[in-house]
Amino acid sequence: MRTEMRLTGSGGQGLILAGIIFAEAALLDGNNSLQSQSYGPEARGGASKAEVIISKEEIDFPKVEMPDVLLSLTQVACDKYSAEIADDGILIVDETVDLNDVKESVTLYRVPILKTASEVIGKSIVANIVAIGFITEITGLVSKQSVEKAILNRIPKGTEALNKRALEQGYQLAVALK
Amino acid sequence: MRTEMRLTGSGGQGLILAGIIFAEAALLDGNNSLQSQSYGPEARGGASKAEVIISKEEIDFPKVEMPDVLLSLTQVACDKYSAEIADDGILIVDETVDLNDVKESVTLYRVPILKTASEVIGKSIVANIVAIGFITEITGLVSKQSVEKAILNRIPKGTEALNKRALEQGYQLAVALK
Repeated sequence: MRTEMRLTGSGGQGLILAGIIFAEAALLDGNNSLQSQSYGPEARGGASKAEVIISKEEIDFPKVEMPDVLLSLTQVACDKYSAEIADDGILIVDETVDLNDVKESVTLYRVPILKTASEVIGKSIVANIVAIGFITEITGLVSKQSVEKAILNRIPKGTEALNKRALEQGYQLAVALK
Repeated sequence: MRTEMRLTGSGGQGLILAGIIFAEAALLDGNNSLQSQSYGPEARGGASKAEVIISKEEIDFPKVEMPDVLLSLTQVACDKYSAEIADDGILIVDETVDLNDVKESVTLYRVPILKTASEVIGKSIVANIVAIGFITEITGLVSKQSVEKAILNRIPKGTEALNKRALEQGYQLAVALK
């Protein structure tokens, strides 16, 4: 009934925007959602995190404690955050990230998100949209229709085709692994 | 030690971005901050809100309860949110908003934020930056140096001069009222 997602990486990877897009897509699906990011000693350490809570019910407790879905696009972020994940959680890391000590009960995906953005699409700035496509296809947490609308609401005009391609590539990375 | 801010208006007025800018400026000032927005039945009603908590200490309770600073850019948002404000709070509304039943202890500013953006700057899209300038000058909650850095980190390249002018106009609206 309540799903917690944490999106981690470095500043400038567009993870706050990714969180806002997931939260707006959840609203379009008829759910409640909360998106947040905190800034403090952690942020000063170079790792950035954005969080989303999606629920059918009103969200009383607005804090992510044990994410059901955790994305880490960088080694620093993964080292810092990967221990905090639900036992049956889904951990998605970029293929450039080395892992150790992941709970056996966690479902793990190691995916070329950054490379797909920079080499297949040709714009590393859309790595966040590739990640949104991957997470959407793997988890079904938001509908594709809603995530596409939410993306269009939030990206600069003139970048629609680019972002659509990035999203499709994210879907395809997931389809290939399912 | 802890200040709660709620930025309200309609979707598309850039209030989430304004919240992110305040939170990042607070971090640059050496404070902790949390920025969030919730989506639910309220958001479906046409009023948008973004929230920021700024604190010297770690932020344990991540929910805004009684904002110390409340901005309302639209009538709908003001009608919905203006009752929830700290007794010694600061309420800032656009001059197009009619007020009734504001606690006497609240400090009230009715300011031409939307008109300044659309007529003085010539771009209604920078109303959020005018508002940031006004709030920064009136409250001193974040430093000007940090807010300027945070804005530059978050706006599209090529819009620096436009946003700088909007921020300056916001400062000046506040100076004129102090």
